[in-house]
Amino acid sequence: MDGGVMGKSTMDGGSATHFKGWRKKFRVDGLCDWLVFMGGVVSALFLVWALWRVGSSNYTMETLKTEGNPVTHKCQGSNSGETSYSGVGDWDKGPENFYNDPQVGYTIGKTIKGWDMKRKMWLEQHPHAKNYAKSRVLLVTGSQATPCKNPIGDNLLLRSFKNKMDYCRRHGVDIFYNTVLLEEHMYTFWSKIPLVRAAMVAHPEAEWIWWMDADAVITDMDFELPLESYENYNMVLHGWKHLVYEKRSWTSINAGIFLMRNCEWSMEFMERWASMGPQTPQFDASSELLSDTLPDRAFKDSDDQSAIVYLLLKEKEKWGDKIFLENLYNLNGYWVEIVGSYEDIENIYKAAEKEHPILNQRHAEKMSREYAEMRKLYMGFDKKAVSMGQAEMNKRRRPFVTHFAGCQPCSGNHNKIYSSENCWKGMERALNFADNQVLRNYGFKHDNLSSNHVTPISSFYIPF
Amino acid sequence: MDGGVMGKSTMDGGSATHFKGWRKKFRVDGLCDWLVFMGGVVSALFLVWALWRVGSSNYTMETLKTEGNPVTHKCQGSNSGETSYSGVGDWDKGPENFYNDPQVGYTIGKTIKGWDMKRKMWLEQHPHAKNYAKSRVLLVTGSQATPCKNPIGDNLLLRSFKNKMDYCRRHGVDIFYNTVLLEEHMYTFWSKIPLVRAAMVAHPEAEWIWWMDADAVITDMDFELPLESYENYNMVLHGWKHLVYEKRSWTSINAGIFLMRNCEWSMEFMERWASMGPQTPQFDASSELLSDTLPDRAFKDSDDQSAIVYLLLKEKEKWGDKIFLENLYNLNGYWVEIVGSYEDIENIYKAAEKEHPILNQRHAEKMSREYAEMRKLYMGFDKKAVSMGQAEMNKRRRPFVTHFAGCQPCSGNHNKIYSSENCWKGMERALNFADNQVLRNYGFKHDNLSSNHVTPISSFYIPF
Repeated sequence: MDGGVMGKSTMDGGSATHFKGWRKKFRVDGLCDWLVFMGGVVSALFLVWALWRVGSSNYTMETLKTEGNPVTHKCQGSNSGETSYSGVGDWDKGPENFYNDPQVGYTIGKTIKGWDMKRKMWLEQHPHAKNYAKSRVLLVTGSQATPCKNPIGDNLLLRSFKNKMDYCRRHGVDIFYNTVLLEEHMYTFWSKIPLVRAAMVAHPEAEWIWWMDADAVITDMDFELPLESYENYNMVLHGWKHLVYEKRSWTSINAGIFLMRNCEWSMEFMERWASMGPQTPQFDASSELLSDTLPDRAFKDSDDQSAIVYLLLKEKEKWGDKIFLENLYNLNGYWVEIVGSYEDIENIYKAAEKEHPILNQRHAEKMSREYAEMRKLYMGFDKKAVSMGQAEMNKRRRPFVTHFAGCQPCSGNHNKIYSSENCWKGMERALNFADNQVLRNYGFKHDNLSSNHVTPISSFYIPF
Repeated sequence: MDGGVMGKSTMDGGSATHFKGWRKKFRVDGLCDWLVFMGGVVSALFLVWALWRVGSSNYTMETLKTEGNPVTHKCQGSNSGETSYSGVGDWDKGPENFYNDPQVGYTIGKTIKGWDMKRKMWLEQHPHAKNYAKSRVLLVTGSQATPCKNPIGDNLLLRSFKNKMDYCRRHGVDIFYNTVLLEEHMYTFWSKIPLVRAAMVAHPEAEWIWWMDADAVITDMDFELPLESYENYNMVLHGWKHLVYEKRSWTSINAGIFLMRNCEWSMEFMERWASMGPQTPQFDASSELLSDTLPDRAFKDSDDQSAIVYLLLKEKEKWGDKIFLENLYNLNGYWVEIVGSYEDIENIYKAAEKEHPILNQRHAEKMSREYAEMRKLYMGFDKKAVSMGQAEMNKRRRPFVTHFAGCQPCSGNHNKIYSSENCWKGMERALNFADNQVLRNYGFKHDNLSSNHVTPISSFYIPF
């Protein structure tokens, strides 16, 4: 028999719980009998209709097609504000929302006019999603579908995906791993733009799309993105203002990891950003433009990272005040400065656990976020950020992300300033440093950061 | 500044929402001032204490250590029944639950006495988890930490992990990918036992641990496990009774995918199961025993699958009535019988979408489960199971899982009856067949099942 009746009760699935009753009604045990089945059909159709009736709004598709609110420089509108709805609905057509708007597409090349209003309408139709939208994040990452040239490339990518998955499981973040090019001419670092664009339409429940390169490793499983401090921004990257505006350096930011708010501003920005990409006829011109503007660029072709620096410099008034450059924590930590310090950091954490045994207590993985709050409190991270300064404190705290920029684990064509051995060994150490934080909830730890051999942990604090 | 304040509001994190107020209180903006900080400290400690006070029970650790309810042959007790609690708590010790019981361990070799009661207590202390426990599933899978011998092995495993992740994102199932041996002597197919055992203790919120071999591909993203029909069972595998009890065949079941209820029965069963493993002195004796009992075994060493068939035959009264052999759908479909039929099945689904255009409508990925219910209804899967018989109907429906048993993508040492080409090509087809179901919500589809080139979908039904 078929099992479409199991109402797995997580917050996702939009208004899943609205359907629970329906599912029960529609439940057909084993070999169903015809009457039960028809009863199910009727109640199912009724409930589909009913749900959509409740959800559908007094905007008609006509308004959606013609109207289109001006690009707000602050897109929170998508989660706030009130609209009154009068019911109109038709179950064989589905709800009147942007998915039924022929003007709405998934592909780069055309923004969605009135996206903020359209997304807001969808959220109004899906109350569960709406309640959680503000803090809802979708992590998007990916790599090529074909095997890596580097013999250990796919293995490193697999473990790096496992690492991101571990973080997302602990923090309730959704993750989408993509292996295909959505725009065949937007290869390598350009490929994320059409992907983030499509994800915005596929995930109206997500306020933020979090792009992360496949070779970035999350090395603090406790850390949570300070979304509240990004309230006035639509894009967040690791970077330094003075390096952008004074040095005009193409490495003043890192485009390998960023947060993009799911709003119309972002779509417009991505169109402008993509307009310097390899899929356009003006690719060579853009390449020249970037090299002329950013003195330290030592390569020819236009790249996504330089393009952002260029837009910050040349179109500041249009984009600058909505792009936040984060450097108070390692949103995108540079591996060369980090991989040697993992053991020292582990020792600092061990010392804190000696002092506060409760931090060394066993607990369900699902309670990790609560224990993380406690650790933050006991280890006084915020207090130290004041007393010793953020930079000093960061050295004593696990780096949130260790990014192996320049290592190219898949192709193996790493930047010549690094040895491949340092790249792969460093990545392995980062993965095991993170895996120790995860395995701890399963009772095990790696013998050392270069070892895949694990042993049970015997040193938990057991108070009773 | 630090970001431990983002209250991502999913149902996980146990009582995460209890802490939201606390998190807000504890919020320290940018360079925090000392008074705000101390206010945060006090309220935080108070709330930690308060939460645990509410949660803690009138069982003392003593009762937990000495008592231990007899193994119930039905473990639902862990989610039902009432217990009255009087508050006792102490924030510097943490809650009185099994994590603070020295008798409780994560490793194979010793069951946890009174596990059902202990897990029930934990659930009582974590109301959010309790409300969802019955239908909570944790998918557990994994592969070796070191690169595969087969050059395309890790790439196939990476994409197979992405495939499982896609299913879990759509259905709100947690997933844990492991890359280390928790018991070094329990290698290859034996390694899942200590892993499932540890996962049970790390995830008391999960009623079911769903083991899936890394080389199994989920090929129906809509399908949901019929957990309600497994209510009276503690383990579910794909298999056929008559092949077990009449043919005594070691392939009468497949141990590559199974559901194990998180209960004491399961722990006892896993101890007995593991007792035939390579980590024990009686490994050779077990090997002989299995070969003597199962006439069609053509290899020497004791294996996990034969061990289950043996226990069904020789210890039926002890385990048999709690192990369900599923064969009404492809819980573990044999790839050889499936990979050639994907196109035919796609055509049957396309025809249904022509007939019922609403099935071809765009929608948020988060609404997939609702659209899946609708598809089930319109395509009359349950009805056809009656009229044409389950087996016939299954040929017209996407197989839930396509398992590449015998292909060994990582080592490359596939069973000689298959060509490697058929194994890898088949796996690629399965992955793309599934990816089409996922990418559809992002507006794209593969050109064909052997191609990684995708194009935008132009044929969606847009009613307005």
